[in-house]
Amino acid sequence: MIDNYFKNRFTVRLFSDKEVCQDLIDEIVEAAMHAPTCGNMQLYTVIETRDKVMKTKLEALHFNQPAAATAPVILTVCADFNRFSRWCELEGAVPGYSNFHSFIVAMTDAVIFAQQICTLAEMEGLGTCYLGTVNYNAKEISELLELPELVVPVASIAIGYPKGGSEIVERLPVKAILHREKYRKDSADEIKNLFRVKDEFPQNQEFVKLNNMPSLAHLFTEIRYPKKMNEEVSKSFEELIKEKFMK
Amino acid sequence: MIDNYFKNRFTVRLFSDKEVCQDLIDEIVEAAMHAPTCGNMQLYTVIETRDKVMKTKLEALHFNQPAAATAPVILTVCADFNRFSRWCELEGAVPGYSNFHSFIVAMTDAVIFAQQICTLAEMEGLGTCYLGTVNYNAKEISELLELPELVVPVASIAIGYPKGGSEIVERLPVKAILHREKYRKDSADEIKNLFRVKDEFPQNQEFVKLNNMPSLAHLFTEIRYPKKMNEEVSKSFEELIKEKFMK
Repeated sequence: MIDNYFKNRFTVRLFSDKEVCQDLIDEIVEAAMHAPTCGNMQLYTVIETRDKVMKTKLEALHFNQPAAATAPVILTVCADFNRFSRWCELEGAVPGYSNFHSFIVAMTDAVIFAQQICTLAEMEGLGTCYLGTVNYNAKEISELLELPELVVPVASIAIGYPKGGSEIVERLPVKAILHREKYRKDSADEIKNLFRVKDEFPQNQEFVKLNNMPSLAHLFTEIRYPKKMNEEVSKSFEELIKEKFMK
Repeated sequence: MIDNYFKNRFTVRLFSDKEVCQDLIDEIVEAAMHAPTCGNMQLYTVIETRDKVMKTKLEALHFNQPAAATAPVILTVCADFNRFSRWCELEGAVPGYSNFHSFIVAMTDAVIFAQQICTLAEMEGLGTCYLGTVNYNAKEISELLELPELVVPVASIAIGYPKGGSEIVERLPVKAILHREKYRKDSADEIKNLFRVKDEFPQNQEFVKLNNMPSLAHLFTEIRYPKKMNEEVSKSFEELIKEKFMK
């Protein structure tokens, strides 16, 4: 029953030169705006980067990764309580959205909206790639895009026509993800069994070898997402939220 | 070109008695697991509440709102770095995910996954409703579902077969949401124009009158999402993140 698209989708990290027409982006955004949103407040804004000068600057803030560099368009989806608060003030009401909870609500809205954009774009034959680096340089991205208070970038999507074939990757068994009634306390052996599919996936084994790591887990903790880097990003991103949402 | 589903979808807040079969939930979750995820880490867990005793308790934590009370199933989607960190430890690697950034990454993963579940469920003829109250009683929900460290609930979805008709609501014009190259600085008049559709929407006007409010904006700031409540939830939710992710 389930539409085949969902099980067969994959992230695209290399895009062709083909432009993505403006009307298509507009149409996708307009349809995505029907996604669920807290209290119908639509606490998000998406900024389209297409201009060559702007895009070169934005690519650099995403460490020039191939997905950012080859995509004709980058969409930066922001948690946005600015527009709504300004409207409240103009109506003589007193907005109360300069706080952490309001950031979390707007971030949830923005990520739901971002994912709706990805689904729509992929169903139209486009490829998409979330740039996890959005949090790393969130302050610099905010400056480049001139984001005002109560606006924080939370999802960056590289978007374009795919170059090259599919890149299906492994996923954990559904049992790992879906728990009944309470959080299941898995034993050490059970955890190892759940992750076996990752350890045994040929591409993962290749990466582990290439990086001369003792295991795939080490590749994650020492190279891909190391503690020190996570702590540095924590600090800068928390500062940005404080600056934008908690003054 | 765009699939009609996306433009015509609506949130369902009242469900029929019809059960949602277990296999369908499993199938939806398994397909949703192909949604984008940071570094293919799948930093989410979904807990299905179906048991009558558990569901009554969970409904109360969602203030017994009709969507929670009438849905046969509630799915609580959690940001989860616990499973991944345990695997790292079992492999002799040192996980570095007890920090704010890692919470944000896992929350992003979890909300993307939650939205994929909603899209899949709605395409299968089910109705869904995000329960924004998930943040309000996040600590109590965590206790009920026995969530361990590095696991925080971020999206609750009431799910079932719709009772009653559609509830199409207004949305802002696409211009409000989509900005080109930089964040657009709208004038006061422009903001008012963008929000006109909300002020003029008959159902909104009815609510304003019913609550004896001077404007729709006042309904939001004084009744629906008042400052004091936002600040209280900020405090409790921040405490939970600190307890679960920053020890």
